[in-house]
Amino acid sequence: MASVLILMGSQSDWPVMRHAATMLDDLGVDWEARVVSAHRTPDLLQSTMQEAEQGNVRVIIAGAGGAAHLPGMLAAFTHLPVFGVPVQSRTLKGIDSLLSIVQMPKGVAVGTLAIGDAGAANAGLLAAQVIGTHDSDVAGRIKSFRAAQRDKVMQNSKLEL
Amino acid sequence: MASVLILMGSQSDWPVMRHAATMLDDLGVDWEARVVSAHRTPDLLQSTMQEAEQGNVRVIIAGAGGAAHLPGMLAAFTHLPVFGVPVQSRTLKGIDSLLSIVQMPKGVAVGTLAIGDAGAANAGLLAAQVIGTHDSDVAGRIKSFRAAQRDKVMQNSKLEL
Amino acid sequence: MASVLILMGSQSDWPVMRHAATMLDDLGVDWEARVVSAHRTPDLLQSTMQEAEQGNVRVIIAGAGGAAHLPGMLAAFTHLPVFGVPVQSRTLKGIDSLLSIVQMPKGVAVGTLAIGDAGAANAGLLAAQVIGTHDSDVAGRIKSFRAAQRDKVMQNSKLEL
Amino acid sequence: MASVLILMGSQSDWPVMRHAATMLDDLGVDWEARVVSAHRTPDLLQSTMQEAEQGNVRVIIAGAGGAAHLPGMLAAFTHLPVFGVPVQSRTLKGIDSLLSIVQMPKGVAVGTLAIGDAGAANAGLLAAQVIGTHDSDVAGRIKSFRAAQRDKVMQNSKLEL
Amino acid sequence: MASVLILMGSQSDWPVMRHAATMLDDLGVDWEARVVSAHRTPDLLQSTMQEAEQGNVRVIIAGAGGAAHLPGMLAAFTHLPVFGVPVQSRTLKGIDSLLSIVQMPKGVAVGTLAIGDAGAANAGLLAAQVIGTHDSDVAGRIKSFRAAQRDKVMQNSKLEL
Amino acid sequence: MASVLILMGSQSDWPVMRHAATMLDDLGVDWEARVVSAHRTPDLLQSTMQEAEQGNVRVIIAGAGGAAHLPGMLAAFTHLPVFGVPVQSRTLKGIDSLLSIVQMPKGVAVGTLAIGDAGAANAGLLAAQVIGTHDSDVAGRIKSFRAAQRDKVMQNSKLEL
Amino acid sequence: MASVLILMGSQSDWPVMRHAATMLDDLGVDWEARVVSAHRTPDLLQSTMQEAEQGNVRVIIAGAGGAAHLPGMLAAFTHLPVFGVPVQSRTLKGIDSLLSIVQMPKGVAVGTLAIGDAGAANAGLLAAQVIGTHDSDVAGRIKSFRAAQRDKVMQNSKLEL
Amino acid sequence: MASVLILMGSQSDWPVMRHAATMLDDLGVDWEARVVSAHRTPDLLQSTMQEAEQGNVRVIIAGAGGAAHLPGMLAAFTHLPVFGVPVQSRTLKGIDSLLSIVQMPKGVAVGTLAIGDAGAANAGLLAAQVIGTHDSDVAGRIKSFRAAQRDKVMQNSKLEL
Repeated sequence: MASVLILMGSQSDWPVMRHAATMLDDLGVDWEARVVSAHRTPDLLQSTMQEAEQGNVRVIIAGAGGAAHLPGMLAAFTHLPVFGVPVQSRTLKGIDSLLSIVQMPKGVAVGTLAIGDAGAANAGLLAAQVIGTHDSDVAGRIKSFRAAQRDKVMQNSKLEL
Repeated sequence: MASVLILMGSQSDWPVMRHAATMLDDLGVDWEARVVSAHRTPDLLQSTMQEAEQGNVRVIIAGAGGAAHLPGMLAAFTHLPVFGVPVQSRTLKGIDSLLSIVQMPKGVAVGTLAIGDAGAANAGLLAAQVIGTHDSDVAGRIKSFRAAQRDKVMQNSKLEL
Repeated sequence: MASVLILMGSQSDWPVMRHAATMLDDLGVDWEARVVSAHRTPDLLQSTMQEAEQGNVRVIIAGAGGAAHLPGMLAAFTHLPVFGVPVQSRTLKGIDSLLSIVQMPKGVAVGTLAIGDAGAANAGLLAAQVIGTHDSDVAGRIKSFRAAQRDKVMQNSKLEL
Repeated sequence: MASVLILMGSQSDWPVMRHAATMLDDLGVDWEARVVSAHRTPDLLQSTMQEAEQGNVRVIIAGAGGAAHLPGMLAAFTHLPVFGVPVQSRTLKGIDSLLSIVQMPKGVAVGTLAIGDAGAANAGLLAAQVIGTHDSDVAGRIKSFRAAQRDKVMQNSKLEL
Repeated sequence: MASVLILMGSQSDWPVMRHAATMLDDLGVDWEARVVSAHRTPDLLQSTMQEAEQGNVRVIIAGAGGAAHLPGMLAAFTHLPVFGVPVQSRTLKGIDSLLSIVQMPKGVAVGTLAIGDAGAANAGLLAAQVIGTHDSDVAGRIKSFRAAQRDKVMQNSKLEL
Repeated sequence: MASVLILMGSQSDWPVMRHAATMLDDLGVDWEARVVSAHRTPDLLQSTMQEAEQGNVRVIIAGAGGAAHLPGMLAAFTHLPVFGVPVQSRTLKGIDSLLSIVQMPKGVAVGTLAIGDAGAANAGLLAAQVIGTHDSDVAGRIKSFRAAQRDKVMQNSKLEL
Repeated sequence: MASVLILMGSQSDWPVMRHAATMLDDLGVDWEARVVSAHRTPDLLQSTMQEAEQGNVRVIIAGAGGAAHLPGMLAAFTHLPVFGVPVQSRTLKGIDSLLSIVQMPKGVAVGTLAIGDAGAANAGLLAAQVIGTHDSDVAGRIKSFRAAQRDKVMQNSKLEL
Repeated sequence: MASVLILMGSQSDWPVMRHAATMLDDLGVDWEARVVSAHRTPDLLQSTMQEAEQGNVRVIIAGAGGAAHLPGMLAAFTHLPVFGVPVQSRTLKGIDSLLSIVQMPKGVAVGTLAIGDAGAANAGLLAAQVIGTHDSDVAGRIKSFRAAQRDKVMQNSKLEL
């Protein structure tokens, strides 16, 4: 399997979660993405995590909206680090997704990112940072990404009316 | 097994959830209460629901706090009606628990009650109401409970400075 | 009368509440839908609940928005289980509807679903689940619905950029 | 009956709502206070409003907490002005009470005051202001109350460390 | 002057506040509407209230958005009843307007209505209800308005898929 | 008059607002503190600002809670910079105070600080910073304060279980 | 350098922040605007503040959205007054930006304005007010701006249906 | 240096953040804890991250309250993974801390944990999980911790009134 497994509760979350995949591509980290629903396919939670552990996956990224149980339930079934992305919900703008993901009880942890696209991209970045702790190539690409980001700000920093 | 199975994420939820048990006692409905944690014992979710279905349980009541995944995950594993009680959390006063329980996606339902003691008591009442749809004794006791409640208000309705 | 009575505060709530009806149709449960306004036809609350009890209605579904008093007031007038659907409000996105429905005091219960369409569909599902506790045909259709839902996730679970 | 009828959902609301009564006493307006619960004595809503209209009550003050339906339901049954006081709830600090009272749909109005003691006192004041529109004695006492309030601020306006 | 004076912080509030005027027209109560800004014309607050009192205005309606100080400041300058309408703000959907209007300290009261159009219409209705306490024609028209509202619900109460 | 005028809506705000005074003392800036209530002494708003302008006050600090209109109304009556401190309210923890102060419309500005003690102290600091733009002694004391603050962190930076 | 330095976290904030520049232009205060990102160019924070202090900048205006760290971090590196503008975020409407900017700890102050365009314009106004404390020309233009604002309200104050 | 560096904005955060240290001790991961304030020692942010990278630190844990800028600013200065802990604030219960930490813009990531003690403990757990991706001893101890946690739930799962 790939180094990073990106899971989401519904195919409709992919337009958000694809930003995690794109970031991982940019940083040269291989990934695999699937739909696994905490509520519609609850029996797949445990088996997917077992498969991930046996397949040498290093990091799990999970996105979900509303009563977003997927990241926390995956974390309950694995010792791999799990990063959660609150997908913006239609009615409450993602504050429900955020609280459902981040407010985990002591003993099962989800590292939670921002609501929506930025959070998904950053979940990819954070996964790469974890891999970069033992892979100097990835760490090097993260540094280059940051430097490029810095340059982009500085090249257009003057503003006129 | 009993007609109503009361589950909660932690023993520390019992001072809240016991109000469900007390209400069921008052209405003459038998119950059983257990700790099942969505995050610490995730493998018990499915087996507990199978046991409940085979044991002729009619209604599941589930209470949890914070990122309260228990009610929704139980609902994902059973066709029995599940009623959720948001337990008041220390930091966000239970608004996190409430949103984590109530904002379920289409296809898996949790009937959610108020945050805290009142919600737990009402989960017991609502479970009894469900049983009362096919048990006229229980329905009768609900009516008596309501009448007693009404009388109590009316006996002390005058207020003076 | 039908097994499930769907009530709402205004005809403008029907585009949301019809998802309850559709779900009940899908699960083979008969329903009837009406407008009854807590504020504009308050005298109909009690008579509608009496009619429902005498007409062998098993479950009440009630949707309303803003200061959403309909579900709680119906619950005050009946011993039948009442499920409430917070309809999304224009200004506060339904958080007002949700709190007005769910935060009931001890002694009168409303099982509350998610804000909007998903909540309405799930109110239909939960009503069917209640009926399914004593009707194995309905219980069977709920299981089939769940299985179909699971299959749909699994058939399209792979995602590519 | 008295000019102002103060109603509340529970005797436990009296420590808050008594501030309305005290303010009315201070402004020389007669009042009467009772417990009427929207949820536990729903059949009393209409009859209490009929009694109030026939008894020449001028203003209704209603306080309630949580899913606070009392003010709105009383307003639905009368053409008298209704002022609502959100009583502070244990879990959500009264934001639920406030939204349940203030977010009324077009066609049934509740003039809502602040959460808690200040709101109750101001409900009494506002009721007196309404009566003062046709009673120059009451209007005069409101002006005196305001002047005394102003003097009290001005007598102690200097502050030192 | 007219019986009801409708004031608002900006001409851009008129599309909301005109619902108060329309309701008063429907109920046969005369009104006058002006822009008075708490922040841009603060010196007009006191003089406008003096003019209103001398001109036999019975009720003040004030609408404002954001840090909505107009209703409270008007109330500070008059003994007439003031009803406040929170106008929906662009960023926070009117929750800022609502809290700025309703959370008045003890001693100066604003009867607050719902956010936006419904609140404006209900401010007109509530003003008419105040006038109706001493004007049986107005009271009669309120009763007719309510009856018509009830009829409208009942004529279209059946719903089909 | 002093360089900085500290105003607050009630004497009960002094335990919070005194932190502004203490900070100004520490930074060698003279101040004067008074109670002026937007709602109870509205006629003093304009005269106090006129007095401040004529008395060479440089900065206004204003604290208030709930529907906190004082800072915005003072800003409406002066061209001096006004800094607002949201005092923590009993029911809503100061979020009402914060929104009432900060969400000012275009054309009248209030520089808003944090809720409570920290905000009051920082209002004093910010006032000193304004004065420091033209007073190098004050600017120097601010730098010393910052350096001392930095030293204090660094002297105790190691932590052990 | 100019008297006021306007900084923002991203070029995408300029459509909001330009309202600060326009206001400063209207009040005859010179300004300069740049992009400096707290997160993407963190090493520029200190050097930019040093440059500002040496270049006789009087006031810093900083705008940012989401986890808006820019205003607070700039304040940490300078003794100049810093005014912060919460830029409206996509998911949470700017409440995250507001709290990230305003809730500064004791010892480092940010004077925070309203979310979005109005806040940006008012940051420009407040900066001019600070400069006006020692520049009577600027103070005069602020008074004229206020007077013009007042006139504009008064010329169109009558409203008709 | 140690494998995990625990940083916090103030010594007063240690009673919360020590739960991260305790968890790391329990899982056999070495740590070091220091106070580094984003606002009071901003010049230490970059040097501390350089020191960490050179000292072979694998994971940064950062806790802060209110306008909690520390985690995000540290993340801006390093390619190491940063986990943020929102410390409960006095006025807003930590919702300000949470939003200030989690709502990071694309390009700089903070994996955010729950507010308060549970979040601090889970930051330690998540850091160990990251280290466990390349250290089977640590991974083994995490599995044992989880198993012990599960056993503890199961030994006391029955509840009686």
